[in-house]
Amino acid sequence: MAETLIKIDLNKSPKEHDIIHNRWHPDVPMVATVKPGDDFIIECMDWTGGQIENNDSADDVRDVDLSKVHYLSGPVAVEGAEPGDLMVVDILDIGAFADQMWGFNGVFAKENGGGFLTEHFPEARKTIWDFNGIYTKSRHIPGVEFIGLMHPGLIGCLPSQELLDEWNKREQALIDTDPDRVPGLANPPYAPTAHVGRATGDVAAKIANEGARTVPPREHGGNCDIKDLTKGSRVFFPVYVKGGGLSMGDLHFSQGDGEITFCGAIEMAGWIHIRVNLIKDGVRKYGVKNPIFQPSDMAPSYKKHLIFEGISVDENGKQHYLDAHVAYRQACLNAIEYLKKFGFSGAQAYSLLGTAPVQGHISGIVDVPNVCATLWIPTEIFDFDIMPNADGPTISVNSPEVPTSKWNK
Amino acid sequence: MAETLIKIDLNKSPKEHDIIHNRWHPDVPMVATVKPGDDFIIECMDWTGGQIENNDSADDVRDVDLSKVHYLSGPVAVEGAEPGDLMVVDILDIGAFADQMWGFNGVFAKENGGGFLTEHFPEARKTIWDFNGIYTKSRHIPGVEFIGLMHPGLIGCLPSQELLDEWNKREQALIDTDPDRVPGLANPPYAPTAHVGRATGDVAAKIANEGARTVPPREHGGNCDIKDLTKGSRVFFPVYVKGGGLSMGDLHFSQGDGEITFCGAIEMAGWIHIRVNLIKDGVRKYGVKNPIFQPSDMAPSYKKHLIFEGISVDENGKQHYLDAHVAYRQACLNAIEYLKKFGFSGAQAYSLLGTAPVQGHISGIVDVPNVCATLWIPTEIFDFDIMPNADGPTISVNSPEVPTSKWNK
Amino acid sequence: MAETLIKIDLNKSPKEHDIIHNRWHPDVPMVATVKPGDDFIIECMDWTGGQIENNDSADDVRDVDLSKVHYLSGPVAVEGAEPGDLMVVDILDIGAFADQMWGFNGVFAKENGGGFLTEHFPEARKTIWDFNGIYTKSRHIPGVEFIGLMHPGLIGCLPSQELLDEWNKREQALIDTDPDRVPGLANPPYAPTAHVGRATGDVAAKIANEGARTVPPREHGGNCDIKDLTKGSRVFFPVYVKGGGLSMGDLHFSQGDGEITFCGAIEMAGWIHIRVNLIKDGVRKYGVKNPIFQPSDMAPSYKKHLIFEGISVDENGKQHYLDAHVAYRQACLNAIEYLKKFGFSGAQAYSLLGTAPVQGHISGIVDVPNVCATLWIPTEIFDFDIMPNADGPTISVNSPEVPTSKWNK
Amino acid sequence: MAETLIKIDLNKSPKEHDIIHNRWHPDVPMVATVKPGDDFIIECMDWTGGQIENNDSADDVRDVDLSKVHYLSGPVAVEGAEPGDLMVVDILDIGAFADQMWGFNGVFAKENGGGFLTEHFPEARKTIWDFNGIYTKSRHIPGVEFIGLMHPGLIGCLPSQELLDEWNKREQALIDTDPDRVPGLANPPYAPTAHVGRATGDVAAKIANEGARTVPPREHGGNCDIKDLTKGSRVFFPVYVKGGGLSMGDLHFSQGDGEITFCGAIEMAGWIHIRVNLIKDGVRKYGVKNPIFQPSDMAPSYKKHLIFEGISVDENGKQHYLDAHVAYRQACLNAIEYLKKFGFSGAQAYSLLGTAPVQGHISGIVDVPNVCATLWIPTEIFDFDIMPNADGPTISVNSPEVPTSKWNK
Repeated sequence: MAETLIKIDLNKSPKEHDIIHNRWHPDVPMVATVKPGDDFIIECMDWTGGQIENNDSADDVRDVDLSKVHYLSGPVAVEGAEPGDLMVVDILDIGAFADQMWGFNGVFAKENGGGFLTEHFPEARKTIWDFNGIYTKSRHIPGVEFIGLMHPGLIGCLPSQELLDEWNKREQALIDTDPDRVPGLANPPYAPTAHVGRATGDVAAKIANEGARTVPPREHGGNCDIKDLTKGSRVFFPVYVKGGGLSMGDLHFSQGDGEITFCGAIEMAGWIHIRVNLIKDGVRKYGVKNPIFQPSDMAPSYKKHLIFEGISVDENGKQHYLDAHVAYRQACLNAIEYLKKFGFSGAQAYSLLGTAPVQGHISGIVDVPNVCATLWIPTEIFDFDIMPNADGPTISVNSPEVPTSKWNK
Repeated sequence: MAETLIKIDLNKSPKEHDIIHNRWHPDVPMVATVKPGDDFIIECMDWTGGQIENNDSADDVRDVDLSKVHYLSGPVAVEGAEPGDLMVVDILDIGAFADQMWGFNGVFAKENGGGFLTEHFPEARKTIWDFNGIYTKSRHIPGVEFIGLMHPGLIGCLPSQELLDEWNKREQALIDTDPDRVPGLANPPYAPTAHVGRATGDVAAKIANEGARTVPPREHGGNCDIKDLTKGSRVFFPVYVKGGGLSMGDLHFSQGDGEITFCGAIEMAGWIHIRVNLIKDGVRKYGVKNPIFQPSDMAPSYKKHLIFEGISVDENGKQHYLDAHVAYRQACLNAIEYLKKFGFSGAQAYSLLGTAPVQGHISGIVDVPNVCATLWIPTEIFDFDIMPNADGPTISVNSPEVPTSKWNK
Repeated sequence: MAETLIKIDLNKSPKEHDIIHNRWHPDVPMVATVKPGDDFIIECMDWTGGQIENNDSADDVRDVDLSKVHYLSGPVAVEGAEPGDLMVVDILDIGAFADQMWGFNGVFAKENGGGFLTEHFPEARKTIWDFNGIYTKSRHIPGVEFIGLMHPGLIGCLPSQELLDEWNKREQALIDTDPDRVPGLANPPYAPTAHVGRATGDVAAKIANEGARTVPPREHGGNCDIKDLTKGSRVFFPVYVKGGGLSMGDLHFSQGDGEITFCGAIEMAGWIHIRVNLIKDGVRKYGVKNPIFQPSDMAPSYKKHLIFEGISVDENGKQHYLDAHVAYRQACLNAIEYLKKFGFSGAQAYSLLGTAPVQGHISGIVDVPNVCATLWIPTEIFDFDIMPNADGPTISVNSPEVPTSKWNK
Repeated sequence: MAETLIKIDLNKSPKEHDIIHNRWHPDVPMVATVKPGDDFIIECMDWTGGQIENNDSADDVRDVDLSKVHYLSGPVAVEGAEPGDLMVVDILDIGAFADQMWGFNGVFAKENGGGFLTEHFPEARKTIWDFNGIYTKSRHIPGVEFIGLMHPGLIGCLPSQELLDEWNKREQALIDTDPDRVPGLANPPYAPTAHVGRATGDVAAKIANEGARTVPPREHGGNCDIKDLTKGSRVFFPVYVKGGGLSMGDLHFSQGDGEITFCGAIEMAGWIHIRVNLIKDGVRKYGVKNPIFQPSDMAPSYKKHLIFEGISVDENGKQHYLDAHVAYRQACLNAIEYLKKFGFSGAQAYSLLGTAPVQGHISGIVDVPNVCATLWIPTEIFDFDIMPNADGPTISVNSPEVPTSKWNK
């Protein structure tokens, strides 16, 4: 059996774990060292570090302190890894803890991060998902059960100082274009809630002051939220510092393309079993800028889909120019309207799009001025038939309520 | 054998065909009428109406008159179809003509439409693809052969006058924000090159003056360029006028998600065999705004992919806010840099991304400020191994030239 | 466009075609010669050479003269092919003729060949299948429509004289164990109905007298009836004579594993587009005895199955020892009983198992004394739900008759 | 988290567990009762009850006492289950124990059970397989790694007395045709090694004297060794006694169709998470004789195969009549010869066919006198390319030894 390299204690706060950190910085101290070819297990808290509970209130989602997340396990050093190498990571398995067979999906209040459809769903919401073997279902969304495509939402190597400086510079430039926006255009370093692992003294202060926040995906990977990074996949990460420093967390039992609910997929605590190797000088050899990967040979084979189109004309009828964000939003809204015909509430449908293995494709992106984005919903996850027919839809869902909490701070 | 409802003559120009039109307008006269449940065959010119030849010069791509395209076959009326119905279209088969077993892929010059990567590839380019049964390969891109995912790039029903007016209004409003831009932000009606089918007199003039151009996808479907609309798929189109008026064209032998080269996929003349049915009042019953569809049970099962990530930081290092267009462009550019390591030229790689069945996913779209877009390249289409390994890539392609023509008008 | 190397005339009898033969013999004269790397089209009669008509009587199936079949197109010589080589055949495409968009499935009378379940269905039967693009359905079996997995039932190279002699010897030895059995244990050479292509004089007589009948699959391939040899697959055939001599025929629009109805799959006339290459000395290099092949990347992706088990205890309760034939028969009978609960007649269900893309697996073959065979029925081919549920089955098929003809000769 | 209904202690012998039994009999006492809709976990010993060790000697395989196997966990009663019902079993998950992440594959000596190719491999052999997350590889077979398709080899409900009597009667009739054969044609009840769970006194004696051995699959399911009964599948079992009495064991990490090595697949101890439901009177409603099932939406998607054919002419050139057993054996032998060209020993290739997810199809079973059986090897499980090419095979495996032990008792 593979060694558990990093253990966590769910009865303690993330701050009490020195093998956890919540900022990206080259100086975060390595907490373990492995050799190329080793395989091992890493335990991870859920991304909020236990802020969300298995109950029927969305208050905890509403009140999440986003400056504290994500809580990552690591960093792990690989012997011989040097800047310019590619670290090859095989994801051998992922699982939830035996005594925590559930996860959550939330939508943040518009005032606290929001989500992809925050104008339509401005309040905080939460659904709880029970895990039954490889399947999950939610007491808050009847009529749906599906196989989880488990994956780490967040994984990558530590940035170099140069790369970190570039991140901070370009993101601050964006913030400066509209510094008072709610939610903010980006999140700058924020020392008060930084958790710097084993760092102490000046190093700890430097990390806290400069460390990049974990929300956005960046060149090193990070919070890519790619649902296909599941067990059986292989990822090639650029190495920027000696040893690489691989950290990970934000485990998902399942997610739809886009993770449109933001908080987020079906979030869980759990463990991940990986194997690491190196391709020396791989960044130059293959011209790699962002991580590349190959998907798994073992994923749910949902084959039947109902596909929705969206174009870059917004909800108000305004024409945008080749805007894929607007087009994908329309595809999502179109799907939600459709699902409501079967009795789902809009909030249930929204949560489904964030959690089930839906695909989001950029189908056409050159036909001026409209992008055509498509949203693929696997129809096999429903207990009833959702395909159109001559008789019209039947109301099949009769409890359309999900826990909702207004922002009132 | 199904009846061929619309026949074309490739030795004549599209203008000589009264069963072809190149504008969307409610008054385009129906050219045939069928009953619900009928299946029949429609022949189609390639989208340019024969402007591109099977040779080794890109001059014809450079000189395409974009105001003339696309040449569509139809419209076909379905008995009993009324506004508010859904027209159910089963795509039963698609093929090229026995004496025209080839297609083309082009990139427009920046001054004449451009493409997704027009800043990087500003000149006109062309590659020719030969069809061998279900497979295709190009003399201009060695080392690659794949199965075609044939589909109509463009298909939909005629708009109502109200819908047409809305299109023209909102697109003109966009144009007005930067009327001198090259290429234009959108394309307004343009009478001189309108081809109005069987319309004559005042009706013809009205169509020419008001008719919407065919380039963008819109609520009725139209030029969606969805590669997955292949034989075996079923599409549900909103009906806006009596009879529906289904037109189609722009057949593709294969295309990558996004059709990033714009001119376009692997373009071909050919035929499409469809069956039509109606869902009365289906638009209201199912809350449909844009077409919805189910994909085919018969598509190339390329399972192995190499996946590239892109984030919304542009080529100059500038940070954009949740811009999926920028993110997908970065994923494409990352893939091109990678493929160049195996000997492909950038232009060959670009053409490959436009033609092979690559997938473009919106993987994460809420992690402020970066979208994570992913580009999936099927690795099985290459004659050689393109996965990374410790030895680094081997130059496997030795003739990196594709026909290129500078804009010089 | 590829050249049509062998053309047939459906208005003439197979005997009037010198590019057709119905016996395997090394001396059948080559009718065309190609080079390695060439691709070309071969036209084929249906396996009976036009004996079966598109009508509602099974008399023609009852009266088929089995000594005349199969009618094969060829043989084609490949330049440079020598005994011991492997001939690599890429199946690029297959299709029916535009004016013959239908096929037939039959069950022979017990007295004339029978079928896998001949004790249960002793009479001749026939169903007619219409082709609608890639789909087929039968007016004799309502409630079912599926995509065809087109393939040649019969393809292979000419045997050497030594191999032919071995075939004749071993098959005669089997016949000799029960020479009066009906149907016969095997079919010896039979000169009166031999069709020897372009051979004349003594050569023709030698072929007629010695030529192996085409019914069984043998070392060279031949009548393997492997449903997966569809467009997109690649086959490696042993070469036994100079030039190889590739012949083929018995095209199927679709077939279930086992082709249990014997007459047979959905049989059709049509064309096949192939490309040939050679692996010199490949038989020795790879230790090949029977053909090997790789399946296609383009096949119907029916994923949902209902699976039936059968064990080697026969219909009378008798225990057999590890008999896979008995076990598969039980699985088929179990499936037929199940389908009858939905209103299908036994004969309809039997025909379905012979035509639809069902899979037959040898699941366990060592657990003394029972083999466990499994029959996989794709559930997506039915218009209604055939999965078990608490309510029990609903009669969904109301016209259970198929054309049937008694043997009365 | 689901309740673990049956726990085992791997440090104790199976005989010390009263929740284990090794005979099928209606009187085996239920060890637990659940309600329809419940889901729960059952722990299982490996099928030999711990007789095989993780070492490099095949002596333990040679010495297995086959009269003791299989050790099954159960029986579990379902409230309300009555004879004639269908018990619906959802297999939600399966796994190995965290401290036993390995399994074994063996071939029995010809004198002790043998295997499918016992004439070719008469000695006892063993290979050990390590589990790395969802993957497995063996130190005894280099060059191969694959994803496990975990499943219970053996699962089913208790037979009624009538059904048991029929089993014993028909199997004894077979034995009587050749009572001295080695290995025996079937295995009759054998009291000395019977393990009867919680039964005592006369009941225990009755079970021991009459209880059916567990090796063959029968009408109730039992030792079907169907590799596709993996997590995500749903099985419908006939119920014969009040409560049903579901027992299971013989967990496999992976297996090839046929389980040709007999001892067997990759055998492991572990746990299985299931959910049970009932279809009242389902046997009659659906005409069910043997269990039926639907496969999982979550299985390894190995798509690339190299396929070998076999016909019913045996190794000595003797012609058999439509013998699927002989045909499948030839396909296996053909595959083994092929694999030897890459450096595998015959024993390694044999073990691979027993363990990897190979498929065995009955492709043609009516073309007198030859069955055509096909063996499908997934080519993606090899570290090197095993497809034929013009250069011929490269020796890629250099340690062809597997532990082997002669029978010497």
